[in-house]
Amino acid sequence: MFVLVNCKAYPCDPVEIAAAAHEVSEESGTRIAVAPQTARLESVAGTGVETWAQHTDGNETGSHTGSALAESLAAAGASGTMINHSEKRLTLADIDAGIGAAERAGLETVVCANNPEQVKAVAALGPDSVAVEPPELIGSGTPVSQADPDIVTDAVAAAEAVDDSVDVLCGAGISTGEDLTAAADLGAEGVLLASGVAKADDPKAALEDLVEPL
Amino acid sequence: MFVLVNCKAYPCDPVEIAAAAHEVSEESGTRIAVAPQTARLESVAGTGVETWAQHTDGNETGSHTGSALAESLAAAGASGTMINHSEKRLTLADIDAGIGAAERAGLETVVCANNPEQVKAVAALGPDSVAVEPPELIGSGTPVSQADPDIVTDAVAAAEAVDDSVDVLCGAGISTGEDLTAAADLGAEGVLLASGVAKADDPKAALEDLVEPL
Amino acid sequence: MFVLVNCKAYPCDPVEIAAAAHEVSEESGTRIAVAPQTARLESVAGTGVETWAQHTDGNETGSHTGSALAESLAAAGASGTMINHSEKRLTLADIDAGIGAAERAGLETVVCANNPEQVKAVAALGPDSVAVEPPELIGSGTPVSQADPDIVTDAVAAAEAVDDSVDVLCGAGISTGEDLTAAADLGAEGVLLASGVAKADDPKAALEDLVEPL
Amino acid sequence: MFVLVNCKAYPCDPVEIAAAAHEVSEESGTRIAVAPQTARLESVAGTGVETWAQHTDGNETGSHTGSALAESLAAAGASGTMINHSEKRLTLADIDAGIGAAERAGLETVVCANNPEQVKAVAALGPDSVAVEPPELIGSGTPVSQADPDIVTDAVAAAEAVDDSVDVLCGAGISTGEDLTAAADLGAEGVLLASGVAKADDPKAALEDLVEPL
Repeated sequence: MFVLVNCKAYPCDPVEIAAAAHEVSEESGTRIAVAPQTARLESVAGTGVETWAQHTDGNETGSHTGSALAESLAAAGASGTMINHSEKRLTLADIDAGIGAAERAGLETVVCANNPEQVKAVAALGPDSVAVEPPELIGSGTPVSQADPDIVTDAVAAAEAVDDSVDVLCGAGISTGEDLTAAADLGAEGVLLASGVAKADDPKAALEDLVEPL
Repeated sequence: MFVLVNCKAYPCDPVEIAAAAHEVSEESGTRIAVAPQTARLESVAGTGVETWAQHTDGNETGSHTGSALAESLAAAGASGTMINHSEKRLTLADIDAGIGAAERAGLETVVCANNPEQVKAVAALGPDSVAVEPPELIGSGTPVSQADPDIVTDAVAAAEAVDDSVDVLCGAGISTGEDLTAAADLGAEGVLLASGVAKADDPKAALEDLVEPL
Repeated sequence: MFVLVNCKAYPCDPVEIAAAAHEVSEESGTRIAVAPQTARLESVAGTGVETWAQHTDGNETGSHTGSALAESLAAAGASGTMINHSEKRLTLADIDAGIGAAERAGLETVVCANNPEQVKAVAALGPDSVAVEPPELIGSGTPVSQADPDIVTDAVAAAEAVDDSVDVLCGAGISTGEDLTAAADLGAEGVLLASGVAKADDPKAALEDLVEPL
Repeated sequence: MFVLVNCKAYPCDPVEIAAAAHEVSEESGTRIAVAPQTARLESVAGTGVETWAQHTDGNETGSHTGSALAESLAAAGASGTMINHSEKRLTLADIDAGIGAAERAGLETVVCANNPEQVKAVAALGPDSVAVEPPELIGSGTPVSQADPDIVTDAVAAAEAVDDSVDVLCGAGISTGEDLTAAADLGAEGVLLASGVAKADDPKAALEDLVEPL
């Protein structure tokens, strides 16, 4: 299972979270990555943890002030990027361009989608992975595997129908090790999580609890 | 005069540009800042140069994946931020919120505008400075001070009419020391420039030429 | 006082509302306009009521599929347009362009703003009127004149400081004749209202109650 | 073959075009629809021609000022809607919601896409049809069937692989009867065209020439 910790714009210390994630990943053998605010990618990468961007734009190099150029994210130490998070929705053309930009810069991609139909749609664009996150469950504390397990199995089937090399992650409401194994049982290859770790008093303990059942 | 070098998404080495800007600033006594891609703010700040963000979002801390949180920009070493560059146009409400967010995080603000009417509009929102950049001149190689000097004097008058503590910068097409003194003569307190330095073979020489007449 | 009834995307019959508004306007001598969904402008204008668009884009004629071209709104019978409603926020450049497009097509303009600072900003762009509508009060049932009367007087002062030919309207939470006279007492030249009329069981009675105290 | 004439924001008389399209459709037995500016839907529908919207938003009824509510488009006489035209790109979530809104209101849907990968993606969302329009050919005068015929055959294959009930249209650069038959030969069930008819001196003659080879 791949655990991707999204720090969003939380008032957290991304370096502390990254250091904890790195340690727990080394100790447990579970793949854990941290996605901080773009401005903090370099510090997070400096901890040795697998580092992801929260977003990449689809533009090439050039006159694009304020863009998140894939090559700059890679130069800052990112090895992957989320695209089309429900808090940063992109046009279809920009998702397509963003996947292309990430490939160009050597970044692994997870494209987010709200439901199995959208999972099928984004799988057609050839990302490495797709993450299904029902917007109404984000930050709810109720994991999708419990609120509506069919969403995960349907997403896995939808992605497979289009391109069986695309992995499916799931997100929204995940915070415990049980949520993680439930996601794995439904066919997910990983999880996105955010507040459960990034807002925890003790991020390391939160991550240890999370990966313990694996 | 304040010289703000915007690296946009150019295929440049922002650290080399930052080091050059820092040296030229120290040697000449001219205030020079560098605005790299957000992902490279930390490296640029590490050179000691005055470091600016190309963009800040207006959100507070919270669930805002992919945003550029003002506090994160500041934590990365930025001391100022552009807002509403013509390549990253924002809604009026988001310009207003972005100025507020920057103030909250201790970032100086330059809000961009296309013409004197928009300069007047953004001056009413209370930024530290306003930059007038006619979009048709960006990247043209023809400085606004030459193509249409009235735009600069009108912008200065417009800002003053609303709030005389708001400085006016000008941009678009500026690349030489003459452009810089022409801008100063028209009442500008600084300039935005981009390709003239960021795409130069020798950024240090370009900056030295630029500040030489001052 | 000018009363502008915004039908939003409510499940209402805009022609019934328009006919009622036309009658009450004729009977009372109060200026009342109706802003339906763009698709229904022609039917609403057919009732003889003063007809407004809810939004106009700033583009000129050309390849702009899906835009709301000012000339097309005018050809459909609109004589005015709202711009930058808080439910349809525009970039500063597009507000500027939208005002220009409306003038080009002979449409009167009301530009919306969230607070007195933004009122000052948009007044600098030269619209006919500005409407202050605190987003948190929209649909609240509590009129701005009661929740925070200073917002209205500050908005009037802000607009006057920039351009004293710009009228100020106020909106958000207005539904009764008392709200209307309170707005007038604070210096507003008109009001925007929506659900109080557009969702009323009897729009004509709602409008009669509204204008009765004038 | 289905011929959908997009009037964009051209300075044309949509009623003249609609009347011509209606006549040519009746005379030739070819299905022809006209998509005017939203403000003119009612007049265009009044000619008896099949009437389409250029865009629909995905929102439901409610507080959505300036939106294009599917139910209002239908009430104005539209029987179909384009979604995600390259001049009005939408987020993936909004394309999904727009298809749902159109179905709710009884509108037929054509979702636009730039390339075969995006055709596959949007076909996964269950529209009635998908239109492939390479942005670089829009308005070029060179039809896609000639510039790059593989784009059409690949789009047909892509849609079929996901959902064989989804028809494929093609657009960009189409203006003659030969373009139309070439599109049909490549597997397209229809075409989108714009300037070839909407900017013609004699729209009726242009349409007659267009459908003559069928």
